[in-house]
Amino acid sequence: MNIKMIMYLISWILKIEAAFMIPPLLIAIAGKEREAFTGFLAAIIVTLIMSAIISFNKPQKYIFYAREGFVTVALSWILMSFFGCLPFYISGQIPGLINSFFETVSGFTTTGSSILTEIETLDRSILYWRSFTNWLGGMGVLVFLLAIIPLTKGKGHSLHLLRAESPGPVVDKLVPKLQKSAKLLYGIYVTLTVVQMVLLMAGGMPGFDSVVASFSTAGTGGFAIKNASIAAYDNYYMQSVVTVFMVLFGINFNVFYLILAGEFSAAFRNEELKVYLGILFTAIAVITLNTRSFYNGWFDAFHHAAFQSASIMTTTGFATVNFDLWPELSRYILIMLMFVGACAGSTGGGIKISRIIILFKSLKIEIEKMMHPNSVKVVKLNKKTITEPTIRGVNVFMIAYTAIVVFSILIISVDNFSFETTVTSVIACINNIGPGLDMVGPSGNFSEFSDVSKLVLCMNMLLGRLEIFPLIMLFAPSTWKQSAR
Amino acid sequence: MNIKMIMYLISWILKIEAAFMIPPLLIAIAGKEREAFTGFLAAIIVTLIMSAIISFNKPQKYIFYAREGFVTVALSWILMSFFGCLPFYISGQIPGLINSFFETVSGFTTTGSSILTEIETLDRSILYWRSFTNWLGGMGVLVFLLAIIPLTKGKGHSLHLLRAESPGPVVDKLVPKLQKSAKLLYGIYVTLTVVQMVLLMAGGMPGFDSVVASFSTAGTGGFAIKNASIAAYDNYYMQSVVTVFMVLFGINFNVFYLILAGEFSAAFRNEELKVYLGILFTAIAVITLNTRSFYNGWFDAFHHAAFQSASIMTTTGFATVNFDLWPELSRYILIMLMFVGACAGSTGGGIKISRIIILFKSLKIEIEKMMHPNSVKVVKLNKKTITEPTIRGVNVFMIAYTAIVVFSILIISVDNFSFETTVTSVIACINNIGPGLDMVGPSGNFSEFSDVSKLVLCMNMLLGRLEIFPLIMLFAPSTWKQSAR
Repeated sequence: MNIKMIMYLISWILKIEAAFMIPPLLIAIAGKEREAFTGFLAAIIVTLIMSAIISFNKPQKYIFYAREGFVTVALSWILMSFFGCLPFYISGQIPGLINSFFETVSGFTTTGSSILTEIETLDRSILYWRSFTNWLGGMGVLVFLLAIIPLTKGKGHSLHLLRAESPGPVVDKLVPKLQKSAKLLYGIYVTLTVVQMVLLMAGGMPGFDSVVASFSTAGTGGFAIKNASIAAYDNYYMQSVVTVFMVLFGINFNVFYLILAGEFSAAFRNEELKVYLGILFTAIAVITLNTRSFYNGWFDAFHHAAFQSASIMTTTGFATVNFDLWPELSRYILIMLMFVGACAGSTGGGIKISRIIILFKSLKIEIEKMMHPNSVKVVKLNKKTITEPTIRGVNVFMIAYTAIVVFSILIISVDNFSFETTVTSVIACINNIGPGLDMVGPSGNFSEFSDVSKLVLCMNMLLGRLEIFPLIMLFAPSTWKQSAR
Repeated sequence: MNIKMIMYLISWILKIEAAFMIPPLLIAIAGKEREAFTGFLAAIIVTLIMSAIISFNKPQKYIFYAREGFVTVALSWILMSFFGCLPFYISGQIPGLINSFFETVSGFTTTGSSILTEIETLDRSILYWRSFTNWLGGMGVLVFLLAIIPLTKGKGHSLHLLRAESPGPVVDKLVPKLQKSAKLLYGIYVTLTVVQMVLLMAGGMPGFDSVVASFSTAGTGGFAIKNASIAAYDNYYMQSVVTVFMVLFGINFNVFYLILAGEFSAAFRNEELKVYLGILFTAIAVITLNTRSFYNGWFDAFHHAAFQSASIMTTTGFATVNFDLWPELSRYILIMLMFVGACAGSTGGGIKISRIIILFKSLKIEIEKMMHPNSVKVVKLNKKTITEPTIRGVNVFMIAYTAIVVFSILIISVDNFSFETTVTSVIACINNIGPGLDMVGPSGNFSEFSDVSKLVLCMNMLLGRLEIFPLIMLFAPSTWKQSAR
């Protein structure tokens, strides 16, 4: 295990994090937010000191395997969440270290679950940082690092880092050079975010609100700065802009790249995109029919069905209505969407559409093999053959995912909340949604859980965002045992 | 598709079913149960006529592939359930055809879910038949057919039938000759059932009650003849006998065969047995601690924890207490046990221990492969290598299983019952448990569901008992398209 190289990369991550704390520091100065100012200043200093300490030993070797990639990603996300929570904790705006950590993990993992019962009284600099964690976590911090820093020495680390941090069963490089890929991804990401900000402001949303709402939408995080979430902006136009951008940020960014490159037919032939939109529109249609009587007319029902389906499926978690009050069928469709999630290579979480497609296609082929043992069909996605190791990887992901959900539910059940609360809190966290049902529904929050449960849910959020394996690697004894190699 | 051969086998199944209706017919005569007598007589006549009609065309070819095996098994279980429900329906003791069918499917699949709100007023012949369906379904009807009838013409059908009907990812033949295997299995089954009857009678349970309770225990079905289930026999000895026999019937019958053959060390080295008992004893220990305050002392808590854990894990579904009132942790442990289920090759349902073992072992190996791509470890169970196709089969089973659970929950949610009711009704049916939680808890029943939901749950029970694929084959167009082959 090349620990020095890992430390070197993490020291960079911490430097970047400290740099990103400067805008909220300036907001705190401008708004004369004394506690928040102290919080950000102290956090920046502590983070930089830590970065300096771990970068003290420069790496001599640049050998970097998949193992190192997994461990780097897992460690950076944990440390980033720890140092990122310091402004909340030191400023005293969020009570207690575990609560501050929970809120930050929830932010970086783009979950959006909150332990706050009252959001609107927080300082603006704190609200900015909270929503910004959604944005930064959405595209991935190591991808950002790859985009801005020329890590030319050695080879392999870029690909291994991208693989370990990017969501989905396979990672497509947009262009042959990885750094260029990373830059393109962030370019698309920034552009879409800015377009949403402008559209929201054009509709009359206050500037600050537009910026933070766009951060949380882009990362499919869902942190809002109003207690009522997006329902606070009681305006069809604004809510619809958010709906459309949630859907956009749930799409595989390769599709946007193809569109930019002028390859429209390739973009729209994308199987994952078709299935994603197919499931989304079906869900919207059924929920519109099912909740018709709750709203004033078909359009209103459709509007909220579309917003809520997009919000849950893209794992954003914004709310315009309390869907916990909907009929059972609509609630179950939302739970199903929680599991399905968004496209691979998007900022959304969940199991991911491409995994679902691969699972169903391999199911079909295996059933044919049972009937016709000599059948030699293979699983294809976008006309490319999916290799056996990828299919096994998807299956293994599902096994680990299920096991984690089951054990997490068992631990959290000790808190003795309702069946819906316990089950959906785990589902909402591992799939990086935000709200669940009942106590953790859109009008509730996660504050009542015990510290143990909160830490388990933090672990779930990280496992969900990093797609399980980096964290398993980090804690597997065999990863460390053979470090002498 | 060799339809004539399939019909020939099914005509035998129906003959056997008609023969098994004679004992309850005699009970009806002895007890002067007029409606029940009419019901059984009419059912026997109709079943025999049907059998005669479909056996009219004798098969000329004895070609029999896996496809034919799956289709035969799926069709026989559906037809068996239909003709088996006629006594309930014609006698009028169970209201309506769908309710009668539900109760019979629940019986044959050894689920034990009931739509009856009042059990004790039923005629004894009806109660006998209801519990007997549990017993017959437990070991499998085609296995019984193989045991008693020398189907020597042609080859392959015995193995394909056994494979399609027996639970678990792999089927071990006990002895080289299949018919002898089937006889041995039924021999062990009958012996254990009789021993339980004798032990219950020795403890003072009435003769009739002992017989039917043993039928339902042996099949891990769980139909009781008292509204309070086994709680009606308020006696530590009787309840403990039932506990022990539930655990025994959840063990892979190969273990009993090995013990009979004097190979004790091989029997007790069985990995599945160790994991089965390990999970069971852990569950009992945690539930005892967790429910201690509900009962008079540690022994009482342990007694009920043991009974209930064994009942749920073996998918029997008997109750001595209303576990729906237990704390959340204990309830979730029971839900987890519902999924885990019993050993492959036992009469129990669920996912099966051996599948869980294979899933976890392949998870471990795949994670090692991620770290050390050149690793060449394979999955082993009881020191035998599990082949790639078997592992794929287990994965495919899990995909299909999950998809069925999700879609069933969506359909049933239209009935708008509570989250717990809807989710656990599907879990209890597909895993062939019987009771779930809330409305379908141990003191509840399935009567309130709509007809659509009842049929979906019937399908779930059959899918669970036959382990999904036979029914998928039956309804897959490609099974029938190529019948010209």
